[in-house]
Amino acid sequence: MTETQHREPANGADAPAPSRRRMFGLLGGAAALGAAVGAGGTAAGLDATSDDRHGSQTPGRPVEFFGPHQAGIATPAQDRLHFAAFDLSPTVGRADLVALLTAWTAAASRMAAGQGVGTGAVTGPPGAPPDDTGEALGLPPARLTLTVGFGTSLFTDPDGRDRFGIAASRPPQLADLPAFPGDALDPAASGGDLCVQACADDPQVAVHAIRNLARIARGTASVRYSQLGFGRTSSTSTSQATPRNMMGFKDGTANLKTEDVAAMNTHVWAQPGDGPDWMTGGSYLVSRRIRMLIEPWDSTPLVEQERVIGRHKGSGAPPGLGDEFDPLNLSSKGPDGELLIDANAHVRLAHSSHNSGAVLLRRGYSFTDGTDNLGRLDAGLFFIAYQRDPRRQFVTIQNSLAGKTADALNEYIQHVGSGLFACPPGVQPGQYWGQRLLG
Amino acid sequence: MTETQHREPANGADAPAPSRRRMFGLLGGAAALGAAVGAGGTAAGLDATSDDRHGSQTPGRPVEFFGPHQAGIATPAQDRLHFAAFDLSPTVGRADLVALLTAWTAAASRMAAGQGVGTGAVTGPPGAPPDDTGEALGLPPARLTLTVGFGTSLFTDPDGRDRFGIAASRPPQLADLPAFPGDALDPAASGGDLCVQACADDPQVAVHAIRNLARIARGTASVRYSQLGFGRTSSTSTSQATPRNMMGFKDGTANLKTEDVAAMNTHVWAQPGDGPDWMTGGSYLVSRRIRMLIEPWDSTPLVEQERVIGRHKGSGAPPGLGDEFDPLNLSSKGPDGELLIDANAHVRLAHSSHNSGAVLLRRGYSFTDGTDNLGRLDAGLFFIAYQRDPRRQFVTIQNSLAGKTADALNEYIQHVGSGLFACPPGVQPGQYWGQRLLG
Repeated sequence: MTETQHREPANGADAPAPSRRRMFGLLGGAAALGAAVGAGGTAAGLDATSDDRHGSQTPGRPVEFFGPHQAGIATPAQDRLHFAAFDLSPTVGRADLVALLTAWTAAASRMAAGQGVGTGAVTGPPGAPPDDTGEALGLPPARLTLTVGFGTSLFTDPDGRDRFGIAASRPPQLADLPAFPGDALDPAASGGDLCVQACADDPQVAVHAIRNLARIARGTASVRYSQLGFGRTSSTSTSQATPRNMMGFKDGTANLKTEDVAAMNTHVWAQPGDGPDWMTGGSYLVSRRIRMLIEPWDSTPLVEQERVIGRHKGSGAPPGLGDEFDPLNLSSKGPDGELLIDANAHVRLAHSSHNSGAVLLRRGYSFTDGTDNLGRLDAGLFFIAYQRDPRRQFVTIQNSLAGKTADALNEYIQHVGSGLFACPPGVQPGQYWGQRLLG
Repeated sequence: MTETQHREPANGADAPAPSRRRMFGLLGGAAALGAAVGAGGTAAGLDATSDDRHGSQTPGRPVEFFGPHQAGIATPAQDRLHFAAFDLSPTVGRADLVALLTAWTAAASRMAAGQGVGTGAVTGPPGAPPDDTGEALGLPPARLTLTVGFGTSLFTDPDGRDRFGIAASRPPQLADLPAFPGDALDPAASGGDLCVQACADDPQVAVHAIRNLARIARGTASVRYSQLGFGRTSSTSTSQATPRNMMGFKDGTANLKTEDVAAMNTHVWAQPGDGPDWMTGGSYLVSRRIRMLIEPWDSTPLVEQERVIGRHKGSGAPPGLGDEFDPLNLSSKGPDGELLIDANAHVRLAHSSHNSGAVLLRRGYSFTDGTDNLGRLDAGLFFIAYQRDPRRQFVTIQNSLAGKTADALNEYIQHVGSGLFACPPGVQPGQYWGQRLLG
């Protein structure tokens, strides 16, 4: 009574519309888009964009797994996150790593399509454990994306060894992050040989995915830490309303929009010649577990909260203006001659004009992990940002923000976890994640 | 620039349909329902039920806060949970407790309607902290319910003192739970003077609610522990499909259905004469944080998983049958003369026929709280059950299940937290939670 269980037909009435990533995600996609608009006219081009966006943002429908880029980066942000970092067992060699990534890629492509791992059977041979753990059976694909990243320790382990013969292929962009002033990093919640970002509109689908990848990895790799997130804190698409973070402010108003193919190629996707060829079409992920000191923040007067952030809390507009998307003018002054945006305001120090033009594709999530031993909420932002070169981007911006004398927000937050990962480009059917590095 | 922010108009196009709790929730509602069916005919009666169910299950719409019962018990289970237990500060007296419950009731009624706490202002007087923390601004009410409970320690504290002059009003049903064989309870994740169960279809709405109640309580009470849950593990309404728990099995197939008013009065709502009058219309909540030993479970053959549970994993049907809702016959035997449902199967030992007719209204949620220090998933079921008398109901059933020689499931689970709370009846506008006890 072996029975393959599909959560949703992979083909048929509910088959996905052509993926937006297929249409726009190719390197050089800007040129292709230009050509399409040239041929079909602007209106037709925009219509196609709208249709496509609808397809990939409809809750429940699958997001295409295969393509030139990994899904989960340019994909409009889903509602939920389960992020996990893994460490490889000490005895594991290159062949084991390839076997793991091969099995993970196969399982991930099935789960993204709404199918169970392996045969998908939960009712297979009675003498064997089921291929799939089953808790996502009957749930829609929920726009699940799985995005893998390779940590710095995969290339050079803490003892300086090159366990997998790939140290020479380590991209210069994957330089260890410096220590920043004010960091309070827990080593157990930082780093990792591998990471998987699972995003979906249903937490049970995201949790199921990480659990089954962890199950596949047993004996080869184990979970170092994981993080559940809810309430995405950035809009990554012009069609997404800006959500609010746990400080109650709109977060992500000025985020990169993934429809902007030229900006994605400039700021997010590794380009030919940037570094080793295996990363071309990939991106670098920086994660930071940022705890918010909720209780002091909640006792802070509105005027101080707005000074610290540099925007109005209600509307999200810049100081003195009324609309969230009114341009942020860092040099505006009030009638008293004082800067409207404080010299230490978060938006000023994070702004690209303050950071040699550096911008990030932010894709973070709020978290609440109960309370600490003093009864204070353990809550905040699991910050995730994708970029072409962390040295020029995250490190530049974080150097502006860090330190007690810099970002006024530092009084209310603490960075307690950190990760840096090279996310390889996407795969085609039959390939595995990282094949251009390890194959 | 004081501005009251509503998440959704309390009246107007999106105003709620008459609450199902209004229609069915009254004590004696069974008679009223019978009368309605008698007058309008069965079909009309069913239509009215369907319309009403639709109203209260439509995502985003508010659930009525006021009524004879607290919301969040008979309310069809929402998708997400944030449960918090609070301890009162040592110096707090009865007047402080009344003030806290009064402020909580006011805030809860506003949040359930989709409004912010206090004035709801996030843009109020600049010199004061905002009335509301803001992160739910712009989100729909998401069927938020807030349900308060009074712990055993509220009546008699650990030193045996009657701090609030209510020891004589302690219901006999609120007898401390016995220690069960196999319990591995963490005191820091057990008990509590007060609890609040926040359920909503959006986790940010549930988290916002608990956070703001904790903020209101500052100086009076602090969070002892809290738990986020996703993926409800029981269908509480005939219109809800049975979800799967983290073991991959359908959970809650045989749960009480809250449409069954007679059953609710028999098994869930405290009735006149049961105990002190202040609890009439209330219910008793038992919570158990049940960790599942995921890794051993996932390595267990299907036949063993199905023996342990006593149902088919794929369909949820009883052994040898094909449909989830086929009747569970505990004495059925196979051709070999052996019982089809194992003598130690979970469904057998939990079944009412095995427990002097005891049943529960289960309303639990799955959880995943990262990994433990061995890299194992800290995941499982945050079990919540409502009942008229825990001594006859939860304790009877748990005595059947507990112990290594009883429920076969005990090999794969561990009870690590426990709570017992008296949830008073609902309130009318102008009243506060527990007024009949403390007023």
